[in-house]
Amino acid sequence: MKKLISVILFLCSVSTANGYADELLTQKCTFTLPEFTTFGGKSISDVKVGWESYGTLNKDKSNVILVTHFFSGTSHAAGKYRTTDSSSGYWDSIIGPEKAIDTDKFFVVSVDTLVNLHPYSPNVITTGPATINPKTGKPYGLSFPVVTIRDFVNVQKALLESLGIKKLYAVIGASMGSMQAAEWASVYPDWVPRMISVIGTTQSNAWTTAALESWAIPIRLDPNWHKGNYYGLEKQPVDGLKASLMLISMQARHPKGVIAMGDKLGYQPVEPEPLEHITQSHSIVNEFAEMAAKRATYADANHLLYLVRASQLFITGHGDSLESGLQKIQAKTLFISAQTDLLLYPALAESAHSYLRDKGHNSAYKELTGPLGHLEGVLDIQEQAAAIEAFLAD
Amino acid sequence: MKKLISVILFLCSVSTANGYADELLTQKCTFTLPEFTTFGGKSISDVKVGWESYGTLNKDKSNVILVTHFFSGTSHAAGKYRTTDSSSGYWDSIIGPEKAIDTDKFFVVSVDTLVNLHPYSPNVITTGPATINPKTGKPYGLSFPVVTIRDFVNVQKALLESLGIKKLYAVIGASMGSMQAAEWASVYPDWVPRMISVIGTTQSNAWTTAALESWAIPIRLDPNWHKGNYYGLEKQPVDGLKASLMLISMQARHPKGVIAMGDKLGYQPVEPEPLEHITQSHSIVNEFAEMAAKRATYADANHLLYLVRASQLFITGHGDSLESGLQKIQAKTLFISAQTDLLLYPALAESAHSYLRDKGHNSAYKELTGPLGHLEGVLDIQEQAAAIEAFLAD
Repeated sequence: MKKLISVILFLCSVSTANGYADELLTQKCTFTLPEFTTFGGKSISDVKVGWESYGTLNKDKSNVILVTHFFSGTSHAAGKYRTTDSSSGYWDSIIGPEKAIDTDKFFVVSVDTLVNLHPYSPNVITTGPATINPKTGKPYGLSFPVVTIRDFVNVQKALLESLGIKKLYAVIGASMGSMQAAEWASVYPDWVPRMISVIGTTQSNAWTTAALESWAIPIRLDPNWHKGNYYGLEKQPVDGLKASLMLISMQARHPKGVIAMGDKLGYQPVEPEPLEHITQSHSIVNEFAEMAAKRATYADANHLLYLVRASQLFITGHGDSLESGLQKIQAKTLFISAQTDLLLYPALAESAHSYLRDKGHNSAYKELTGPLGHLEGVLDIQEQAAAIEAFLAD
Repeated sequence: MKKLISVILFLCSVSTANGYADELLTQKCTFTLPEFTTFGGKSISDVKVGWESYGTLNKDKSNVILVTHFFSGTSHAAGKYRTTDSSSGYWDSIIGPEKAIDTDKFFVVSVDTLVNLHPYSPNVITTGPATINPKTGKPYGLSFPVVTIRDFVNVQKALLESLGIKKLYAVIGASMGSMQAAEWASVYPDWVPRMISVIGTTQSNAWTTAALESWAIPIRLDPNWHKGNYYGLEKQPVDGLKASLMLISMQARHPKGVIAMGDKLGYQPVEPEPLEHITQSHSIVNEFAEMAAKRATYADANHLLYLVRASQLFITGHGDSLESGLQKIQAKTLFISAQTDLLLYPALAESAHSYLRDKGHNSAYKELTGPLGHLEGVLDIQEQAAAIEAFLAD
């Protein structure tokens, strides 16, 4: 059974590799693990995750770059599924032929995490509380075990091993993806000679954990959440989910970017509608609400809670101290922060970089300069394309 | 009727003035306005607010300093009601005999705002959605008109006029209190020769408005909120209120302060309970939840929504531009920011200060240096006590 899966996967990756034309095209593949044991010691059967690749795996399988995705992201890191797609994967500006992560040289792999935020997307394959528990025939709901960044990494490793890969060329991830990258470098140092952390952190501190909690709060208040048992019911916890996504959108930005949004909308402190009645809102609030409603389309409320928890539980190496986790890293490292990031603020990455450098590691630190806050690491990553390309060159 | 009220008030203030011993003692007084018209043009009958004073009104009534309170604050700015009280008013470190705001010289007045957050506190008197509408005999709920910072100011002015006061010596306020102070200075420039803004802003920009909205979101999601019609019902929107207060507490702090809180609690990213089950939380989250539960005791959910709205609608002068509002200010000004403030971040006050200074005004700018974020302006104000004292000296 396990061997058969590997064969299917290999075919999938070959097919992907052959799909390139002038435009980078990709497809979603599925990886299945019949049994998986979490970091917390719980078992999950029939784990499925989606994955994509860009570029061609070389003969000695030495050109693999793993891209780990952010909280609300998916494995669609670059390219299109069809030439008619309206948009490309989120890091298309740096992944592709002759780009910073050059798919003419590298075989780039990205994997949907467990408990991915968007289980209802046609382009996401994930396992989480919205998944049918094979033992009961019903969705797991909150009986799904708590999963961690380590678990995301372990599923990725099993996938890579199924492709016959035994070592990465590099791992790179933004935000929650940076957590996975750091975990990879610490727990599987033999696999990771190069690690790039973008808008990242090497642990959740007390403040990060509290800030993350604010994303969970609206969902638990929604009367349609029903303590997680809403699957199959007529009313879904959409209001709580939208409110949560609205908080995430707001916290991922910086005043500079939001003020620019407001200027485009014609925002004024004294607008007639919110002055007229308490149930009406300012233009900038309506704009965030509309964005959140769109983002909620394929998202699941319980999955969001599990992503919050995985992020809260993160410390590199999942041990008692950050130092013990960082000390295991052998990789050359590059940390890229965003100056306007108020969520995973620059000092978090800078302190990890300084620690490693002071211990004699080869570590570099760069900053994105734009006004988009945490989103800089996703939307403006091309500003550091040259640094990424140079880092990968040797 | 109106004259009688004034007499009662005057007696109240005299009584207060006579109450001083070694310890600063005060009492809560009530001010009533039979009719009030809001900035939005709506009428409210029988407006009542509480107020306190410290020090003695001099003969020519020229020694009045008005203290305007913050979002979750009350008129209890200093002193105690009884010598046995466990704590004093929030700015007791700078208000009192021989303190920065010297009650041996000044008659210091503070007033509960309309829609004060804590209508159920025995020490707060306010008028808002939880108040009985005299026309229906039932609480206003969301039929209460939207009120603005201008309305808070206008009620304060009516109170001061009822005491025969025609001009302030100074106005000072923190956070939402700074909005009231700026509004006073702009709309009644003849009244305000000196204005001190602490952790303040002279307008809500698009980002502030969005950030404030996040405090309203949890309340509206609580099934017991019933679109504001929860008064008299068995179940109250306590969960939404607590969640909102938790967000406020978290956003008013800085990572430095929260990390210090976490250290005291023994916070770890990998704690056994949150790893064990999704319904359990980290120690730092539990701490914030307990603090919020305590803060919710006397608070009202609708009042919180109205305070959010008043703050969102704020621009100095309530006109079309900040410049037109600031240009009307004649007062000498002092702006005191907190370096770690992530909510009303220093650049907000600094830009207003720079604008006034560049226009030739007498304006000064100082910063609090501690790790408590926005809370610095309440908890660590004594760091700038000397600057406040010097500013008030001439």
